[in-house]
Amino acid sequence: MRNLKIIGYGKDKGNKILMFGKNKRHRMDKHQSHFTMSKTAIDQALEKCSLTIEDMDLIVFASAIGYQPIPCSAALISREYGTRKPIPCMDINTTCTSFISALDTVSYLIDADRYKRVLILTAETASLGINPKQKESFELFSDAAAAFIIEKATERASGVLYGLQQTWVEGAHDTEIRGGLSSMHARHYNEETEDDYLFDMKGPKVLRLVAKKVPDFITLLEKESGYSLKDIDMIIPHQASRALPLVMAKLGVPEEGYMNYVQEYGNMIAASVPYMLALALDEGLVKEGSKVLLFGTAAGLTISGLILLI
Amino acid sequence: MRNLKIIGYGKDKGNKILMFGKNKRHRMDKHQSHFTMSKTAIDQALEKCSLTIEDMDLIVFASAIGYQPIPCSAALISREYGTRKPIPCMDINTTCTSFISALDTVSYLIDADRYKRVLILTAETASLGINPKQKESFELFSDAAAAFIIEKATERASGVLYGLQQTWVEGAHDTEIRGGLSSMHARHYNEETEDDYLFDMKGPKVLRLVAKKVPDFITLLEKESGYSLKDIDMIIPHQASRALPLVMAKLGVPEEGYMNYVQEYGNMIAASVPYMLALALDEGLVKEGSKVLLFGTAAGLTISGLILLI
Repeated sequence: MRNLKIIGYGKDKGNKILMFGKNKRHRMDKHQSHFTMSKTAIDQALEKCSLTIEDMDLIVFASAIGYQPIPCSAALISREYGTRKPIPCMDINTTCTSFISALDTVSYLIDADRYKRVLILTAETASLGINPKQKESFELFSDAAAAFIIEKATERASGVLYGLQQTWVEGAHDTEIRGGLSSMHARHYNEETEDDYLFDMKGPKVLRLVAKKVPDFITLLEKESGYSLKDIDMIIPHQASRALPLVMAKLGVPEEGYMNYVQEYGNMIAASVPYMLALALDEGLVKEGSKVLLFGTAAGLTISGLILLI
Repeated sequence: MRNLKIIGYGKDKGNKILMFGKNKRHRMDKHQSHFTMSKTAIDQALEKCSLTIEDMDLIVFASAIGYQPIPCSAALISREYGTRKPIPCMDINTTCTSFISALDTVSYLIDADRYKRVLILTAETASLGINPKQKESFELFSDAAAAFIIEKATERASGVLYGLQQTWVEGAHDTEIRGGLSSMHARHYNEETEDDYLFDMKGPKVLRLVAKKVPDFITLLEKESGYSLKDIDMIIPHQASRALPLVMAKLGVPEEGYMNYVQEYGNMIAASVPYMLALALDEGLVKEGSKVLLFGTAAGLTISGLILLI
């Protein structure tokens, strides 16, 4: 086990509520931005452990989309705090599973005593990039942020029991935003290309690949980790879509065994998993000693799982 | 020491040569792209160790700017190879020091036996984002890619002796590209905002902050690592600007103690450090047993140093 414990966490979401049938979506209002949601989540996390930003030893921004192309987003959010201590800042990105990848990666750095205390921020602003012409995704996403502060566990056993990631690149172009960086600079934006700068998901194709690959992924995870899904107290999956119950049913997970808030919260891109983890901690669905599986699929197609002892 | 060895490396650069006075710059010609340079560098690296992409256990894209906002660039380059094995793909970004950060981070994963063999790709296309109105940076940058394949060292001692990163966020907005992601979506691109989508560097201000912070960084690195700069056989610095000799002179490093190819190659953003490391290996400036310091400053302002035993 890679020893670590959560000492603080926080979350924020869009204040403007949209209803699509029974589905509630949270989008930024005119007073909110990627930065304000990020800061609210971090402020809550810091308050929970009575620390300040300068008590951090590493800041990781773990999201699909950053604030700016340059510099890295971790530096920009640290700048918002006017941090005067030279805390290293780094971005880690595996799209929707970025938080899982960051926690997994950082657990090695903490275990090896490279850094004592790490802030991981995930913040996403889907509403800026969704395409009204793609009804399914247009009505699916919410804006949100979640922040976690972790440090080495010393008093009791807690931490990362096992992590696994797979990336099946046959699906790399089935979920994408093509424009905005090197492949298509903003200077090429016009009426004909505007869709290239928006989120484009081939939903049924992605779902077919997920349905094909996830069961074997879970089998491998169970075999390699030595933990069966039955040993897990709570699965915290990426709230990818309304197909979540179908995927979980296929894995034999009962309704009470996983967080399913797609209707209430929507897909918050990489923020879904840490937001749900924060919610689970708030509501006592997960507590000290709980075994939790953070699990998600991401554009790539990436599948990621991390077993935590809370 | 975190044991690892370089088993393959490769590099590519822009084929169109521009001269600004004595300064040679390499920019992509019409047959090249971010992807073609990436593939050339990876192909060379794979050839050097007689392996294929499917022999990798992790692919890390470590650059300031990716191909697309979604998915992560590591997945996109793996897709270019049509990889059928689900190799995990991840992006790590600290702007110009991304390669150093990725190698530093990955060394923990290799040391802990999470992954056996890792491909780190750094590829940058500065020519797409420089602003003709900013003469200094417009005449400074080149396009390039470099790839390294590393695995655990078992036969003889080699690997990461020490790593240090600092990010001084008072400089976060002195080197930036503001537009293209959440803070300024491509839809806001027009004649008035076009400069926001291009590289913007307050050169003299950045240089003042570098001059102020780098000497203390090196003092700390020497103290914490137990290695003096005099113990280092070759310093491989980011080819940030023509001020490189001034910075090195201030640190007391003699001309033969560091790679200075700013005139011949220009600033290749995050690709500078791995490109120079590949060049040093090719030219025998660095060989088995050499102690090397990878060193760079990046937008952020990040300062990063990694001592390697080759």
